[in-house]
Amino acid sequence: MADVPNLTPLPEPGRIEVVALEGIPEIRPGDDLPQIIVSALRATPDAFPPRDDDVLVVTQKIVSKAEGASVELDTVEPRPEAIEFAERWDRDARQVEVVLREARRVVRMANGVLITETAHGFVCANGGVDASNVGPDSGSIVTLLPEDPDASAGRVRAAVAEASGIDVPVIVSDSFGRPWRCGIVDVAIGVSGLEPLQDLRGEPDHDGRVMRSTVRAIADELASAAELTFGKRAGRPVALVRGAAFRRGEGSIRDVLMPAEFDLFR
Amino acid sequence: MADVPNLTPLPEPGRIEVVALEGIPEIRPGDDLPQIIVSALRATPDAFPPRDDDVLVVTQKIVSKAEGASVELDTVEPRPEAIEFAERWDRDARQVEVVLREARRVVRMANGVLITETAHGFVCANGGVDASNVGPDSGSIVTLLPEDPDASAGRVRAAVAEASGIDVPVIVSDSFGRPWRCGIVDVAIGVSGLEPLQDLRGEPDHDGRVMRSTVRAIADELASAAELTFGKRAGRPVALVRGAAFRRGEGSIRDVLMPAEFDLFR
Repeated sequence: MADVPNLTPLPEPGRIEVVALEGIPEIRPGDDLPQIIVSALRATPDAFPPRDDDVLVVTQKIVSKAEGASVELDTVEPRPEAIEFAERWDRDARQVEVVLREARRVVRMANGVLITETAHGFVCANGGVDASNVGPDSGSIVTLLPEDPDASAGRVRAAVAEASGIDVPVIVSDSFGRPWRCGIVDVAIGVSGLEPLQDLRGEPDHDGRVMRSTVRAIADELASAAELTFGKRAGRPVALVRGAAFRRGEGSIRDVLMPAEFDLFR
Repeated sequence: MADVPNLTPLPEPGRIEVVALEGIPEIRPGDDLPQIIVSALRATPDAFPPRDDDVLVVTQKIVSKAEGASVELDTVEPRPEAIEFAERWDRDARQVEVVLREARRVVRMANGVLITETAHGFVCANGGVDASNVGPDSGSIVTLLPEDPDASAGRVRAAVAEASGIDVPVIVSDSFGRPWRCGIVDVAIGVSGLEPLQDLRGEPDHDGRVMRSTVRAIADELASAAELTFGKRAGRPVALVRGAAFRRGEGSIRDVLMPAEFDLFR
């Protein structure tokens, strides 16, 4: 079959473990997050050196904080559209303004919900602009998504490899809502060192039938698994997922973005 | 604050493990799946008796098979609309017909993609009708979603409780695509014994700020974590997730369905 990629079968684990790293302090702009994560790996029992079936998952919030991807709301002058939307739906007009500035395209703006496509191509509520959990004295600061989350992941990966000699793939994760389903789940917004999609098309399933349309969003599942250990209140923003089957490669989160011509929900 | 629920804080785990159960045979219509799962728990090291921080995740496919939720395509007479769509997009008209019969509403039917809302209220590709991985001699059989996935989960939960004395929440999972992102991830389509959404609104985050809009789709994240151990080819269709923080309760997957008045993507 011409359209079936010839891929090495993945290992099949049966058992994984997710370990949140210990000792990550409050992150501030300019902090060397990759080195902080290396220190946290060393501080977490059994985490250093990492294993070659580990994947590191790092939450967007600390990446954005370290990179200074944030905006002081006091400096923001909202446009009339932002003021109108904010007044109607009891939101902060300055935050709405930041979301609109970060947007390449507004997908929906209704019911108090603002769904945009960011410059990266992510479609999500509020363009990833987030007011909660940005630090004790940060009433008027919102975080933005990192400018290049793949590169952010790559810097963590490089620091871990240098410290340990192990090439650990890294995922930057964020919490996204979904159409038709309530609640948020963590997904990948940046990757380094693994393919975020596992194309199983053409691999036979265990009955020997050929699976024609199974592309597994493995990076998103790894991000969700990691989230189960984070704990909103305890503030554990990084976890190791051990033992999962993944395919190494220089994948990009862009691989996960639905091309416009296949997008039925623009 | 009047709109803040008064909830007991959840434990904060930091470490979880996911263990796929061993020894699940090929499932056939009429099989006693709850008892088969109890046997698999006994056959899997460290899995029996389960712990009180375990959640069982069972894939839809074996639930549907055991319950006989399937259709012989040879018995299906496709309507003209199904024939036309199938011819245009190289699909099986009988399968398209089954999807349309299972649909309460067609959400999108374009580009060869058929997204429907099922009788349960799930919006997903092909209404959960699935041709792959239904058995060695099943070239012409498709599985449907279970009629009442919460009840399916409840029967497994009851059997495990009777055998072990432990009340283990159960999730029935399936693989869904998502708008805007390529690839499928596992989500919950039925639950018993836990609240599928964790409403963290009003709980302070670790900076003491109050999170105003964080509802975590915990059942979906548990389903995704479990999937990482399934392995498409090895056919491990059930896993225990150990150590995650969840809230017990008589939740229903209906809690996760977005009410129509909030649905911006009808």
